Amino acid sequence: MDANPILAETVRGNWVENRHRGAYVVVDADGRIIASAGDIERPIFPRSAIKSMQALPIFAREAEGRFHHTDEELALACASHHGEAAHVATAEGLLTRIGLSAADLECGAHAPTNAAAREALRSAGAEPSSLHNNCSGKHSGMLSVALAMGVPTASYVGREHAVQKAVREAVEAVIGESLSEDRCGTDGCSIPTFAAPLRAFALGFARMATGKGLSPDLGAAARRLFDAATRHPHLVAGTGHPDTLLMRAFGGRLMQKVGAEGVQCGAIRDKGWGYALKCDDGNIAASQAMLAGMLLKLADSDTTQRQALKALAHQPIKSVRGAVVGELRAV
Amino acid sequence: MDANPILAETVRGNWVENRHRGAYVVVDADGRIIASAGDIERPIFPRSAIKSMQALPIFAREAEGRFHHTDEELALACASHHGEAAHVATAEGLLTRIGLSAADLECGAHAPTNAAAREALRSAGAEPSSLHNNCSGKHSGMLSVALAMGVPTASYVGREHAVQKAVREAVEAVIGESLSEDRCGTDGCSIPTFAAPLRAFALGFARMATGKGLSPDLGAAARRLFDAATRHPHLVAGTGHPDTLLMRAFGGRLMQKVGAEGVQCGAIRDKGWGYALKCDDGNIAASQAMLAGMLLKLADSDTTQRQALKALAHQPIKSVRGAVVGELRAV
Repeated sequence: MDANPILAETVRGNWVENRHRGAYVVVDADGRIIASAGDIERPIFPRSAIKSMQALPIFAREAEGRFHHTDEELALACASHHGEAAHVATAEGLLTRIGLSAADLECGAHAPTNAAAREALRSAGAEPSSLHNNCSGKHSGMLSVALAMGVPTASYVGREHAVQKAVREAVEAVIGESLSEDRCGTDGCSIPTFAAPLRAFALGFARMATGKGLSPDLGAAARRLFDAATRHPHLVAGTGHPDTLLMRAFGGRLMQKVGAEGVQCGAIRDKGWGYALKCDDGNIAASQAMLAGMLLKLADSDTTQRQALKALAHQPIKSVRGAVVGELRAV
Repeated sequence: MDANPILAETVRGNWVENRHRGAYVVVDADGRIIASAGDIERPIFPRSAIKSMQALPIFAREAEGRFHHTDEELALACASHHGEAAHVATAEGLLTRIGLSAADLECGAHAPTNAAAREALRSAGAEPSSLHNNCSGKHSGMLSVALAMGVPTASYVGREHAVQKAVREAVEAVIGESLSEDRCGTDGCSIPTFAAPLRAFALGFARMATGKGLSPDLGAAARRLFDAATRHPHLVAGTGHPDTLLMRAFGGRLMQKVGAEGVQCGAIRDKGWGYALKCDDGNIAASQAMLAGMLLKLADSDTTQRQALKALAHQPIKSVRGAVVGELRAV
């Protein structure tokens, strides 16, 4: 296997310390490649970067019509959220309205990603619940799909459950590829994740951004999800997170979502381009530097947007005493 | 620059998710290469992996003779410790005996690496101090060197301070290379770190393990440090850490030390071999898998030792709910 190019590196003092390889691709909805680096046909696990695709069955199965999901709930369905008050309240609100509770979530409990939220929970002497799991919005949405389909909610995370089959079909329709059990794993939140070529995920985001290549219903659902996410960037990640900051800076032009192990997917909506990026070694900060380097070249950004991107393309490395001793940077 | 080979990878389900490249080299004290992978001449920052070399001036400058460092203090000087009770007490004991205190440490304060120690400190309502810094043993040793040299202790972390010059000279003598300001940075604990070829650090460890190529004084000092570290593996890292577990399993045959950003250095003492390993992307867990893969091939290990190595060569990846969904493994 050929090595992907070095797309990010860390420098300490005057010498390079670490090197991060990866691949990215930017395509339009017809599959024309706008820009790329590395092996874009290598199948990668998209992980949480495609939560917006995994949320499509909310519409396809009429859960949306039945339960009237709010924009906030849709944004949270696309989110890897930080367990802050607004995130927890939004997930809990949906569950209550559909007659379920945190006990029905099968994602598992972990402490809030946000330090202040973690601290507040701790000070209150409370244990983290499944609602604090960064995936609780996606899982609440999946539970609403199970109810709308009239199937049991139990084991909705299983590969053979009707909900996961619907999710898989939606992703296949959007990326234009069959997903295979031969390239399948289990995500941190217990749902299946399928590997597919990096290029296919970029194409999926271009299609979702434009509606091209999708049925009218799927196109409308994709638009509603991207609108919800870009209007509520705090709900898609959390305070200080790059996805939130970038989407806020781009004011609706950019749909951006991180996935575990160094995946970045999204769309430059006004251009109708989708993109997908994977850092070979799974380092998230490095993948964010790579993403920023890519967007600085392609996104026609204004001053505010460039400032947000440059902060990611040059991340300071500090000593314990707080002195800047190096940086992680896009190459 | 040619890409180094993939030496570790993570698998999720039935598909490879991440790839980690790196280089390693095993040499004897005459510089004969026993085994290697990747570019062994590329200069790397050794970071904390060479704390045993940086501790040599304790002897050269007669601090040892003056202050009678205990084996425990010498082991802690070689350590990246976890801030557990024994670590803090040992650092504090040395400082008190030489008439100094935590206030003289210039490494900065951070919370204990060990979760239980962190929790205990927190429950007691206490703030982390410089004593909890994983480098406090090394820094206490450096303060003793300053006193023995009769120079001011203030700014002992600075590149121009007599202590750091002595450290630099000792490292140069051991690895057989000049260290250059052209390949220099600042470590997390504020002392200088110099990049040098991976091969040179391996040679340094082989020389320290055998005394070959070193002055009798330096050879004796190296032996005393390796003896201290391998007799007190808990002090060199902490509860559950791979360095502690491996050194305990090898009962004196193995000197092993991690460095930040995926560096591993050490010696198979009975064979007289030194080794150095660097994971290109800085991932520590991956570098530990690489190390285990290398030692499984070369260290003539018994059943207990192989068990410890295999646990590192195959590290489970779990979902939030605790199910094993993949592994990080040596390639």
